[in-house]
Amino acid sequence: MMIKQTLLLFATIILLFSSTTLIEARKTLYKGSNKPKIEPPESSVLNVHIVAHTHDDVGWLKTVDQYYYGYNLTNFNGGVQYTLDTAITCLLQNPNRRFIYVEIAYFQRWWNEQTVEMQKLVTSLVKSGQLEFINGGYCMNDEATTYYDDIIDQMTVGHQFILDNFGVVPKIGWHIDPFGHSSSQASLFGAMGFDAFIIGRIDYQDIAGRLENKQMEFVWRGSKSQPKYDIFTSVLRAMYCTPNGFDFEQGDTPMQTDPNLFDVNAQQRADEFAAIALEYATHYQTNNVLIPFGCDFAYMNAQMYFKNIDKLMDYINSNPQYGLNLIYSTPSIYIDAVNKANLVWDVKTDDFFPYADDPYSYWTGYFVSRPALKGYVRQNSQLLHVAEQLLVTGQADIPNVQSYIDSIMPLREAMGEAQHHDAVSGTEKQVVADDYAARLAIGNTATLNAMNNVLGSLLTTNSLKPLASPAMSFCPFLNISVCPATSVLTNHGTSVPVILYNQLGQTRFEHVNIPIPVANVTVSDSNGIVRSQVTPNSNSSLGYVLTFLAQIPPLGFSTYIIENSGQEESTMTEYVEPKMIKPSSSNIIFANQFVSVTFDSATGGIMSITNISSGDQIQISQQYMFYLPSLGDSASGQPSGAYIFRPINTYPFNYNNQTVKVTVSQGSTVQVLTRYWSPTMIQIFRLYDGVPYLEIEETVGPIDISDGIGKEVITQWNTSLNTKQTWWTDSNGQEMQERVYNFRDTWDLNVTQPVSDNYVPINAISYIQDTEKNLQLTFVVDRSRGGASLGNGELEMMLHRRTLLDDWRGVGEPMNESTQIVTTTRVIFHPINDQVQSYYRYFAQELQHPIYPTFTQSNMDASVWNNLYSGTYSPLTTDLPYGLKVQSLQWVDDTQDTIVLRLENIFQVDGIDTYDPVVINFDIAGMFSYLNVTSVTEMTLSSVAKLSSVNRLQWQTNSEYQQAKEDLYKLYPTKDLEINDQTNSFNIQVGPMDIRTYLITVTSNSI
Amino acid sequence: MMIKQTLLLFATIILLFSSTTLIEARKTLYKGSNKPKIEPPESSVLNVHIVAHTHDDVGWLKTVDQYYYGYNLTNFNGGVQYTLDTAITCLLQNPNRRFIYVEIAYFQRWWNEQTVEMQKLVTSLVKSGQLEFINGGYCMNDEATTYYDDIIDQMTVGHQFILDNFGVVPKIGWHIDPFGHSSSQASLFGAMGFDAFIIGRIDYQDIAGRLENKQMEFVWRGSKSQPKYDIFTSVLRAMYCTPNGFDFEQGDTPMQTDPNLFDVNAQQRADEFAAIALEYATHYQTNNVLIPFGCDFAYMNAQMYFKNIDKLMDYINSNPQYGLNLIYSTPSIYIDAVNKANLVWDVKTDDFFPYADDPYSYWTGYFVSRPALKGYVRQNSQLLHVAEQLLVTGQADIPNVQSYIDSIMPLREAMGEAQHHDAVSGTEKQVVADDYAARLAIGNTATLNAMNNVLGSLLTTNSLKPLASPAMSFCPFLNISVCPATSVLTNHGTSVPVILYNQLGQTRFEHVNIPIPVANVTVSDSNGIVRSQVTPNSNSSLGYVLTFLAQIPPLGFSTYIIENSGQEESTMTEYVEPKMIKPSSSNIIFANQFVSVTFDSATGGIMSITNISSGDQIQISQQYMFYLPSLGDSASGQPSGAYIFRPINTYPFNYNNQTVKVTVSQGSTVQVLTRYWSPTMIQIFRLYDGVPYLEIEETVGPIDISDGIGKEVITQWNTSLNTKQTWWTDSNGQEMQERVYNFRDTWDLNVTQPVSDNYVPINAISYIQDTEKNLQLTFVVDRSRGGASLGNGELEMMLHRRTLLDDWRGVGEPMNESTQIVTTTRVIFHPINDQVQSYYRYFAQELQHPIYPTFTQSNMDASVWNNLYSGTYSPLTTDLPYGLKVQSLQWVDDTQDTIVLRLENIFQVDGIDTYDPVVINFDIAGMFSYLNVTSVTEMTLSSVAKLSSVNRLQWQTNSEYQQAKEDLYKLYPTKDLEINDQTNSFNIQVGPMDIRTYLITVTSNSI
Repeated sequence: MMIKQTLLLFATIILLFSSTTLIEARKTLYKGSNKPKIEPPESSVLNVHIVAHTHDDVGWLKTVDQYYYGYNLTNFNGGVQYTLDTAITCLLQNPNRRFIYVEIAYFQRWWNEQTVEMQKLVTSLVKSGQLEFINGGYCMNDEATTYYDDIIDQMTVGHQFILDNFGVVPKIGWHIDPFGHSSSQASLFGAMGFDAFIIGRIDYQDIAGRLENKQMEFVWRGSKSQPKYDIFTSVLRAMYCTPNGFDFEQGDTPMQTDPNLFDVNAQQRADEFAAIALEYATHYQTNNVLIPFGCDFAYMNAQMYFKNIDKLMDYINSNPQYGLNLIYSTPSIYIDAVNKANLVWDVKTDDFFPYADDPYSYWTGYFVSRPALKGYVRQNSQLLHVAEQLLVTGQADIPNVQSYIDSIMPLREAMGEAQHHDAVSGTEKQVVADDYAARLAIGNTATLNAMNNVLGSLLTTNSLKPLASPAMSFCPFLNISVCPATSVLTNHGTSVPVILYNQLGQTRFEHVNIPIPVANVTVSDSNGIVRSQVTPNSNSSLGYVLTFLAQIPPLGFSTYIIENSGQEESTMTEYVEPKMIKPSSSNIIFANQFVSVTFDSATGGIMSITNISSGDQIQISQQYMFYLPSLGDSASGQPSGAYIFRPINTYPFNYNNQTVKVTVSQGSTVQVLTRYWSPTMIQIFRLYDGVPYLEIEETVGPIDISDGIGKEVITQWNTSLNTKQTWWTDSNGQEMQERVYNFRDTWDLNVTQPVSDNYVPINAISYIQDTEKNLQLTFVVDRSRGGASLGNGELEMMLHRRTLLDDWRGVGEPMNESTQIVTTTRVIFHPINDQVQSYYRYFAQELQHPIYPTFTQSNMDASVWNNLYSGTYSPLTTDLPYGLKVQSLQWVDDTQDTIVLRLENIFQVDGIDTYDPVVINFDIAGMFSYLNVTSVTEMTLSSVAKLSSVNRLQWQTNSEYQQAKEDLYKLYPTKDLEINDQTNSFNIQVGPMDIRTYLITVTSNSI
Repeated sequence: MMIKQTLLLFATIILLFSSTTLIEARKTLYKGSNKPKIEPPESSVLNVHIVAHTHDDVGWLKTVDQYYYGYNLTNFNGGVQYTLDTAITCLLQNPNRRFIYVEIAYFQRWWNEQTVEMQKLVTSLVKSGQLEFINGGYCMNDEATTYYDDIIDQMTVGHQFILDNFGVVPKIGWHIDPFGHSSSQASLFGAMGFDAFIIGRIDYQDIAGRLENKQMEFVWRGSKSQPKYDIFTSVLRAMYCTPNGFDFEQGDTPMQTDPNLFDVNAQQRADEFAAIALEYATHYQTNNVLIPFGCDFAYMNAQMYFKNIDKLMDYINSNPQYGLNLIYSTPSIYIDAVNKANLVWDVKTDDFFPYADDPYSYWTGYFVSRPALKGYVRQNSQLLHVAEQLLVTGQADIPNVQSYIDSIMPLREAMGEAQHHDAVSGTEKQVVADDYAARLAIGNTATLNAMNNVLGSLLTTNSLKPLASPAMSFCPFLNISVCPATSVLTNHGTSVPVILYNQLGQTRFEHVNIPIPVANVTVSDSNGIVRSQVTPNSNSSLGYVLTFLAQIPPLGFSTYIIENSGQEESTMTEYVEPKMIKPSSSNIIFANQFVSVTFDSATGGIMSITNISSGDQIQISQQYMFYLPSLGDSASGQPSGAYIFRPINTYPFNYNNQTVKVTVSQGSTVQVLTRYWSPTMIQIFRLYDGVPYLEIEETVGPIDISDGIGKEVITQWNTSLNTKQTWWTDSNGQEMQERVYNFRDTWDLNVTQPVSDNYVPINAISYIQDTEKNLQLTFVVDRSRGGASLGNGELEMMLHRRTLLDDWRGVGEPMNESTQIVTTTRVIFHPINDQVQSYYRYFAQELQHPIYPTFTQSNMDASVWNNLYSGTYSPLTTDLPYGLKVQSLQWVDDTQDTIVLRLENIFQVDGIDTYDPVVINFDIAGMFSYLNVTSVTEMTLSSVAKLSSVNRLQWQTNSEYQQAKEDLYKLYPTKDLEINDQTNSFNIQVGPMDIRTYLITVTSNSI
């Protein structure tokens, strides 16, 4: 009987649709949908672009999967499966309606659960424009604490999904929630071919002026080096949620239009909405205004929204006296309409940090919050890039590329999720932070396994007889002095071959530190034993640290074999016993060919640095201090918390209450000074032979709150430099931003928080300069931090923080994290000259893309091993030109012959006349030794559209900025790909700080 | 461009459906729906009937329209438009799913807003059984405070809507929220052809025993007089909401079945649900268990429910080890399955009052709450029945029946809404109570206008020349001594013709009281001046009351003309000046042919009543008292409130603190004693010439809370009768229920609330008996109250209540209502003999269906008026047989020739051997003088199904009850309609307390 009913029902549906001609098709089942078609923007009225959207945080109060399936809705909003279920249904029910979707991490989950038939219908919605992907990254990434590699990756994962499934490419950046906006984000979006960047949160003082002066829209020059990536930017009138009173899904009064019922309110509601639309419009220059309808995790019951918007729209559009044309729109439709107005727009050249939403609330805490997670994200970024590279460079021996790609997809996706603006930012609940870490760990493990196989097969590539690939292992926690892989060295006769991978495009000479359990070891490469140094672990009773200089070819590896040398002491292995320093000793001096550093023997503290080449010296001191997080005060109850840094005082307190224990070990490979206060506060200085930087390794945390008081720990550097209230910080690891104390480029700052209003994000590099003496002190860091220069010659960076109150921005719990971090900083003191960037950019590249060690074990001695296995490997014919970075090298999914290659010129136009950045010329065709490049196609940055097919909207700016752009490109003319059929070369030119993206088809040389 | 998109989309949809064959049709767009078809109940496993439902209160915390369109969802759940929108969509998306809908007040609102195409699709869902109407009244009516006329009406409005639009008839009673269940409800549902009655709330002690003993299902004999209306009754295991943990719409953990995501929980959730289902099943006798999925205003986002139920069902049914067969079911499918088990069921013969949900919470307050609303509902019931009748009886002169029906539809619907279990029950918020009153008032006005026209045309029917119909007006507040229509009597020469309508089937002789502004009047009918009495208004300084005996034909009217007689005093008009009674006077005695009543001159209080015919006398006293509503105490915080009557003490306090002023006016038509304490407490006794009852009019309220204390006001009667802890109350105005102090028929009562656990609803009649002396004291009341007999010879009834705390059952505000009521009671003291029911049933009929007066004005004197206009009218050929009530007489919508006639035998089998109820014989064909009856079809009670086509499910009961039924029908054999073609007669027989429903087609005699 039930089967019969089913058939009957479907017979009815089929009849209904079959008997409908195309012309009549618009008379659908649903009232409102057979109303006159809503017209596109009109010139004579105010066009109100209703943008139906949902802001789906990829984790925050719940984990990403919990948000997806709707766990614990009683306490936390968010069930994305229902949002997509019901919104799609509503789009199918009325072809006038539009909806945008942003976060592909969620859309992908949903898509994979749909039937093929449903997927077809959704595809038709995308084709018709009813459903539009906006932004389209895997998440909506944070802009303060993300590294540009990771931004590009997460956008690419999302865009690739959209391209693969729908054949379309998003056109608009939509970052309506991140807490401040970076210059890099703007220029990266430009490089992705986006027509505009729509943002939600800007400083409360900034927006007040922009509202007043109709400056809510402008052209943003995110990169001085590459004005071609200028992007039109629109600030939302009042954040991204539905205007007050019209959130039909959350209890605001529905449209009551049925005259048979009480409470008919259509006119009243229309009047109210019209007033809002007209007010919004007063702040914008065209006759278009964008009004978002949605909020966090909206449209879980899409019918409530769409049904009422339909009615509101119908009523207002049927009453011309309103002078309004309401349309279901999208950001791209809105931007097209604004562009057509053909106005001349202002240009903004600084960024949007820091962000404050009231005088007491500078969102500068999250630059630092959860530094362990920030570090883990950066480590996995490095691993992912190594793995992606290895899958390509090891390709000749990979029978099934796709299975390897599948193995690294979990890490791609976990990294995509981790870039979310409540993930790496540290502004999620603790359990959610743990979830990100767990996802990264799962991806990490799967990726290491894949790498294992590739490396193993590369090792055996050149062997004369078939060899089993050796079992590889990794030491994930190298920097905390533990490496199980080397524990076998306690057995004499067992050797540990270490395969050191270099993901940079240039041969690398760099010291590596490896924890070992015994002192008597030798290190060999294929040429024999190399010099090394062994030092007892100064901050633990366990083991030793082995240090040696490695040389590794570009995108390749070198093998170093560590052997237990038994009772013999090798002359090539220098054993250095640390000495405890007594306070009364004379100053300690570390020096090498480039730099000399003086430390105070009483404290171990740094006193001065001398650049030996130039002879310049500065006085310098460094100390650990902490700010007291506000618990609220009489001015405002606002506490310091996960988002907000609000110190009680304008000065920090000394963090080092314990007596410091100072030890020094000075060998010829590395000189090490260790300052030990407690297991939760250790500082190690290292000066390696032949390098100009001083390396500092700091162990911080868990922060002690046994006194019941939270703390925000900084490292404060004071120097004799005259820095004129100015300092510089990078933007997501890219172009440097000039920062001036208590100053904003575009408005007169009303100073209310003289510490935290100066904090800005540092992702990789920060420096201070003495422009009179032409001296610069640069800090290269291993993860995102916040920092500021609050006094002359001063630079401080916050390392860790622990706050005991929630800061009222939704996370609902204190950022009371008891993690320990071990963080590395490279300090370089150097003159300001035309090589200024090479002093820090290259070392930053090294720190961001460290040598990746893989371990195995063997019973062979070094020479036997070297006879059997490939000791070194590089897929390149030669080093890339200096300054050219292989930003990405990865297979395109589901292909066996197409790779994405992104090449970046790491140097920027910096505005200092003395420096002349290069345009780097390069022939892609000759790049790989083992691959024939058969075609090269330049793509947009997210690699989903041919660059030549993308015509970004043009925006007029005032002539000053237009001229600057033209002048620049006269100085640094770059050409698109130039193919020479005769020589089979594919020559490119990469201008300052540009990233060029190519799809390359290849065949293997070996076939 | 957008038109093109639309066409594309629809082309896709059409192709999708068109290319689908019927066999393949089940592969729909949605996952889960192409799973194997869920099979009907199986014998070898436990069949778990998932009933997806929503309980949509027709007003409660919000008004009915506010609930419909979803006003103020932030604070109060409920937006029925979304429930129906999304549930229908979900049914269309998966043909396995089922959903039931109950409240037609909402469904009708929704239906009227749909497109024709959508209506067609919904119709297909009803035909296929995916959408089933259950219960199907306009609302889910209260059972304690409703009058049976109104229950029948509201069920008919709903059933008629369903029949008209879908051609189906509901089969199951579904009262899963009302606060106690009445015997009448059960038998009325039986008479409607229902197969079962499913209920939710029964007493906590009762359900404990039933759960223990698997007595959750049984046959309920609601009417001892008509066991043919026995109905199978099923009590829900745990009320009507989704089992704990599975409310997927309100935050309970969704099914997570995607192996690519974290937190997969399908097995865990299935285990949890299986445990619940198995526990439920232990309390029922068959291998079927009904589990509701839904709650108040559920399925606003139906996708959340259905998607997860699909997954739960799929998982459990795919794992046979659970031993469960989950099916989307409905109450009718469940009941069919239970019936097939063919078990022998217990029979219950008492009702479910009172209801307590814990030892401190007897829901006996709402029997009385908002007595003004209860009175207004009853008044409008009377009006509606008069109007329905008049539209039929006046039909010969009505050109357009439908327009008149349209005029009374608002009152039909407002009455339908007012029967809701949070409407007339008084358990709604104050603003919602106001809304019900406003809806009734709107319906009232429209109905009066329609009546006006009909009456006006009837008045002129017999006139010799064309006459304009006189303008009619009504005095809605006759009982508060104000009648604007008679104010013109201050002008000598102006007369006020009063048209008195009698809706009963028998000629009526009854006194009427009419407020008039002057004393000197005469009253005439067509035969000349009639005797009357004028008495100054004793409780106000304004005006007089005119009293005279009216004689009115059945279903017709008589006209009485009141004239200002100028200075002349008419001998036919007796003027009686009230006398103030001094306390020292001798007792006051009122007497007529039937009864003698003695009052104490000191207090005006009643002292004794003597039945003159039998010579019996009893001592009697009456006083006003009040209980103190609990504010919570050490035993429980439970306060007394809108639902719950919880007095602080087991005894009431004296309510009359003021000095009483007693006045008496004794005329030959009526003797009146007035006791005046204050404007908020007035008691009037009236004894009319020639009637056996003493009428009491009580003005109560607003209840004084100036002392900050709420009060629950009772009238307490103490008599010399030996009542043996027993009293009787009616059931919705129908069969009398025997009540015994602190006793329950079916379980041993644990007494925790010795006052409120004895309170039961009184809708029309309550009496106490002295069975030794064969004496009975009967109270006939004008609206629903609560009452109890707490001592020997005592009967108390609560008249009004005002409580200052909310009682925690959701209404969220105190029942702090400042209304005044004027309520009428008829007291009859009589022997218990075989005419015992005629002593109160007929007088109750009179009080429930009072003479309906309509006023006009004229400059003619009475004789001129009587020459021009019809003075009396009746559509009947003769009086109906004694005891036969025209329960309804109304047109069937959209027909000009079909009427619904319900005829009721008002006497019951009462179990007292001395009384022998009649089977009333009647010929419908000869009933109307002006109509030819051309066909008669007997219908079920809600008039939507032919009785002969309804085959109610048969249920075996134990032989005792089967035998009792057979014995009864041997005593009172009744036949169905018997048509004699020769004599053109349609003879029927109506057994004790049966209501027979007929569809009658008619033609007018006059054509």
